[in-house]
Amino acid sequence: MLTLYCFGPGANSLKPLLTLYEKGLEFTRRQLNPAVFEHHEPWFTKINPNGQVPALDHDGKVITESTVICEYLEDVFPGANPMRPSDPYLTAQMRIWTKWVDEYFCWCVSTIGWQRMVGRMVEKYSDEEFEEHVKRIPIYEQQVKWRRARYGFPQDLIDEEMRKIAFSVRKLEARLAQSPWLAGPDYTLADICNFAIANGMERMFGELVNEQATPHLVDWTRRINARPACQKMFAETPNEFARRSDEPTSEPVKANA
Amino acid sequence: MLTLYCFGPGANSLKPLLTLYEKGLEFTRRQLNPAVFEHHEPWFTKINPNGQVPALDHDGKVITESTVICEYLEDVFPGANPMRPSDPYLTAQMRIWTKWVDEYFCWCVSTIGWQRMVGRMVEKYSDEEFEEHVKRIPIYEQQVKWRRARYGFPQDLIDEEMRKIAFSVRKLEARLAQSPWLAGPDYTLADICNFAIANGMERMFGELVNEQATPHLVDWTRRINARPACQKMFAETPNEFARRSDEPTSEPVKANA
Repeated sequence: MLTLYCFGPGANSLKPLLTLYEKGLEFTRRQLNPAVFEHHEPWFTKINPNGQVPALDHDGKVITESTVICEYLEDVFPGANPMRPSDPYLTAQMRIWTKWVDEYFCWCVSTIGWQRMVGRMVEKYSDEEFEEHVKRIPIYEQQVKWRRARYGFPQDLIDEEMRKIAFSVRKLEARLAQSPWLAGPDYTLADICNFAIANGMERMFGELVNEQATPHLVDWTRRINARPACQKMFAETPNEFARRSDEPTSEPVKANA
Repeated sequence: MLTLYCFGPGANSLKPLLTLYEKGLEFTRRQLNPAVFEHHEPWFTKINPNGQVPALDHDGKVITESTVICEYLEDVFPGANPMRPSDPYLTAQMRIWTKWVDEYFCWCVSTIGWQRMVGRMVEKYSDEEFEEHVKRIPIYEQQVKWRRARYGFPQDLIDEEMRKIAFSVRKLEARLAQSPWLAGPDYTLADICNFAIANGMERMFGELVNEQATPHLVDWTRRINARPACQKMFAETPNEFARRSDEPTSEPVKANA
């Protein structure tokens, strides 16, 4: 049995979510609520001591790290609509792109996302309540990030992240101008993992990502959004930024049934 | 035919070097000289436009990124002394560790290594000559790093990297106190990729890594150094920091024959 602990269909949680939908695998979704720091509750840090989603429970074994989960699903269910090329050279190209998301692209976009949205999510707490939550976060860098989301990121960091975002957009556009999909002729985990970060950039960074400036990137985003698996995922999976509940939300839900 | 473009047996170059030796694969080594910026020469940026080693040429196809090259070698030569577990759960654990090296551990150690050693490597150049070289570096972040290696890293960055190194040492020691190898019962790419960064820390960060403070980490390092493949690699592959030549060094050499 597969149980995915995740947030809504965006960023790192989207990677295994979309992979599960593309591969047609039924799973139980347990969607945590970041606005009440549910992923740092003791019940969840027993599952992932880092207090991070996504995490996949497969028959009692827990796999963490979004990209690792995606490759795990390929290793365990290779026959179910493969999202990893059969050719090793193309697999290597796929991994260069998934690695680039994890080491570069996701961080710059994430900082700006946190600056604009995450601070607001916890406005309801007093400074003391906020600090009580933050102190329980297992990863030091995440504590720093939460405090910055509330009290402000250094301007030189924001400037540097915006430079990296502009570079990332140029890199994706250049690649998609020469290839239909990032790793080559086929849609793969490279596309899923980059889409997890890039989808929404047209809205969030409209001055950089739009039909005129980045036609290939916009077209690629739309092609992925149009896929039946992607539409089913968005239809079934609530977005916590829309919901803004103050309640834990991790009750089990059958997904992709 | 396999040709590996690399530096000496340390850091990212060590990862595919040791993997090739462990798997018993013959290859041609083309070892570039960082002290003359050979990896930014046009002949090499034709092979890897990022101007980075290692890069593997396999029958005319080029694979870049050290960790991706290691997994590629497993994909193409699965029968040659596997360095990747056959169990998908253990493979996921391996990938969590190789990913951690690439996203966290390698960067903090690298900054201090650059601070202490790389600046000295290019002292022979005038500021103007140095800048001429740096301007040709394809990756912006690498330009910044070379300039800092010559003119100084910000103290707050050095302090933060030292904090991360101390955390990394504690993390490795804790894991190796409970498991003989990082990913579980067997020696895998997780060990090779972490060893690439950790070997030498007893010398470079002796106040953190030593027999008293980190007995399991030191023992693990010695067990890997004692492996025949590792000894053969070190015997056959010159270390550029010992050599300090001003000449390009990329002539082809038969390795692991």
